[in-house]
Amino acid sequence: MFPILSGLRVVECASFIAAPSCALHLRQLGAEVIRIDPVGGGMDFGRWPVTPQGDSLYWEGLNKGKRSVAIDLSRPEGRQLAVDLITAPGPDAGVFVTNHPQKGFLGHAALSRQRPDLVTVRVLGWRDGAPAVDYTVNAALGLPYMTGGAGNGDDPVNHVLPAWDLMTGAYAAFATLAAERHRQRTGQGQEVTVPLSDVALASLGHTGQIAEVLSQGDRPRYGNALFGAFGRNFRTADDRQVMVVAITGRQWSGLVQALELAPAVAALEAALGVAFEADEGQRFVHREALFPLFERAIGALPLAALRQRFEAHAVLWSVYQTLGQAVAGDPRLSLDEPLFSTLQHPSGLRYPAPGAAASFHASARQPAVPAPRLGEHTDAVLAEVLSLSPARIGQLHDAKIVASA
Amino acid sequence: MFPILSGLRVVECASFIAAPSCALHLRQLGAEVIRIDPVGGGMDFGRWPVTPQGDSLYWEGLNKGKRSVAIDLSRPEGRQLAVDLITAPGPDAGVFVTNHPQKGFLGHAALSRQRPDLVTVRVLGWRDGAPAVDYTVNAALGLPYMTGGAGNGDDPVNHVLPAWDLMTGAYAAFATLAAERHRQRTGQGQEVTVPLSDVALASLGHTGQIAEVLSQGDRPRYGNALFGAFGRNFRTADDRQVMVVAITGRQWSGLVQALELAPAVAALEAALGVAFEADEGQRFVHREALFPLFERAIGALPLAALRQRFEAHAVLWSVYQTLGQAVAGDPRLSLDEPLFSTLQHPSGLRYPAPGAAASFHASARQPAVPAPRLGEHTDAVLAEVLSLSPARIGQLHDAKIVASA
Repeated sequence: MFPILSGLRVVECASFIAAPSCALHLRQLGAEVIRIDPVGGGMDFGRWPVTPQGDSLYWEGLNKGKRSVAIDLSRPEGRQLAVDLITAPGPDAGVFVTNHPQKGFLGHAALSRQRPDLVTVRVLGWRDGAPAVDYTVNAALGLPYMTGGAGNGDDPVNHVLPAWDLMTGAYAAFATLAAERHRQRTGQGQEVTVPLSDVALASLGHTGQIAEVLSQGDRPRYGNALFGAFGRNFRTADDRQVMVVAITGRQWSGLVQALELAPAVAALEAALGVAFEADEGQRFVHREALFPLFERAIGALPLAALRQRFEAHAVLWSVYQTLGQAVAGDPRLSLDEPLFSTLQHPSGLRYPAPGAAASFHASARQPAVPAPRLGEHTDAVLAEVLSLSPARIGQLHDAKIVASA
Repeated sequence: MFPILSGLRVVECASFIAAPSCALHLRQLGAEVIRIDPVGGGMDFGRWPVTPQGDSLYWEGLNKGKRSVAIDLSRPEGRQLAVDLITAPGPDAGVFVTNHPQKGFLGHAALSRQRPDLVTVRVLGWRDGAPAVDYTVNAALGLPYMTGGAGNGDDPVNHVLPAWDLMTGAYAAFATLAAERHRQRTGQGQEVTVPLSDVALASLGHTGQIAEVLSQGDRPRYGNALFGAFGRNFRTADDRQVMVVAITGRQWSGLVQALELAPAVAALEAALGVAFEADEGQRFVHREALFPLFERAIGALPLAALRQRFEAHAVLWSVYQTLGQAVAGDPRLSLDEPLFSTLQHPSGLRYPAPGAAASFHASARQPAVPAPRLGEHTDAVLAEVLSLSPARIGQLHDAKIVASA
């Protein structure tokens, strides 16, 4: 955590990955984040992975360092409390992150009557507001038909990473700061909508894939081959798998030298009339001719020998490993680094949790903070932000409009 | 494009996806972005997809709306010009986005001698600064061993989406605005580093996967099944594939009703002693018992009939389609919407290009702007930002220190 956004206060009513991770990113750069949940927890309170006792590792990962307020949002008095928290005064408050529908009491039009300069950042599924999740957006966009080898026939292969959720969360955090900057300069608040499907579609447009499909048709399955340059998985003599990539000319020449393939590659270039170092695309066009050379060369070496050669020639590569192997044994992915802090979490487990993925070099990184217990900060937030008296907070508890951890 | 960050000026020396997309996001919310490239183009100038003539659709997708300056960066005079552009004065200037190594003339220590409040946002591969790309980070993190079905044995299945690049670009844009906000308030500039590998590792931590692997071991391959709730691809009577998801209780009950599976599901619940609506995780635990019911029910219906039922019950689903089918025929992914603008691009092709994925509702969306030709703005930027005279700019051209389109 870095004290970069100190003073900024964000209120979150959200669930799952995209909107909660948006607020998490803001929190991990120093903003205060008040997360409002229904009493008993929202839709994501039990989302897997869970402990054997059913506590969600997902929930406690996505809500680290937030203040938790539990309110009965089905009752008018509870809803008004939530609205009061969202629209509380202060030049660095009035920022609301949500994935609730635009209709209803959390709609921007209603909220901004109470605070006209409110910034609402709303993550949507489809751009028309209909629900979508990462898996349904990805299915609609065609990536599962590009993933895996030709042996999959017309069966889709789903990604296991909720990539669009994660990307949307980061992009929404960016949009939040942009809108807040605009408000600081103009006084103008507004609603910002960030549809998962638009983030996905725009991303494919930004990387040229929409221009490609419009002008050249659908990209077929290329298995594990990197599109448009040299790259694939190869098996070593001791049966490990390595991902090897050469996009730039220097990466290519380093790789060819490391494997002592210069004569064989030169012969192939002469036969084909191409120059692989100068044109990365030719390495992709002729990959079926190139791959066997690399299969033999890599397959003749055990991993340790290959590593030595690759490191000597600055080859762009990595061994494939499981996540367990990665976090246990790969110094580049160590959990001991300042990025991680070992914390006691609400689940009862103690494990390393990540802070902000960026490092701000003029500020000291502060340790990550665990997630709250549900409702842990109900009383404190109602007293601090809404100036409610202990007697009033007691009444709200008695009426079961709020709950504490 | 939205005029939200108007006035902010960003200088970019970068290639590939992460850092250039960071600057693109800033540009699409209204910042001025000056991209400095070597004369003849950088390492990504020919990256695929390309037109039949070899023009990069990727490059022109990632550099939309930027001003292009071409400088010979191998010569001291060219390097000084780049440094002068990066460190040019102005309260809303002095923001630098790069993926160049920390050593050398683009290092923050050297640059900040010329402008002490410079904000440098540097995308790294591994956290120690060693090069990495999406494919090598992903291989090291284990996701290819979780992707696809058990039939893949111990062969990895690579993702085709450069998810970590895209996520890092969005997160770096967020980090840029955070650092710029901090500078506005304190006067303090700084270097911000954003390693691809830390973005990836932190993301897996935020979603509970690191806690999971540390406490429960590696997650096996689950094929196309959604982890921890109900979800998978199914085949319709007319041989279309659909992705069907039920995470919340309401999604589950809607799905069961839509397929008239209530009696069969109730019988299974009684036999197993579980309540699927109340506990999404049980739907995953017992997926092999549940899937055949859904295979039969969905397999008995053609897509049109299924669609009707799913829409009537607000089921969370999507048909699988190719990207070509998506952009040609799916209104939720239409390229006609305000998100896209049909433009003439430097490749000579005319096609719809996306603007900002977020919509700012108090501001009118302005059309997207095409990428520049390489060096298109060299003269204008040198005159405007560095106040160089036409004679001086002419000398730089004569000495081949700069080039124009």
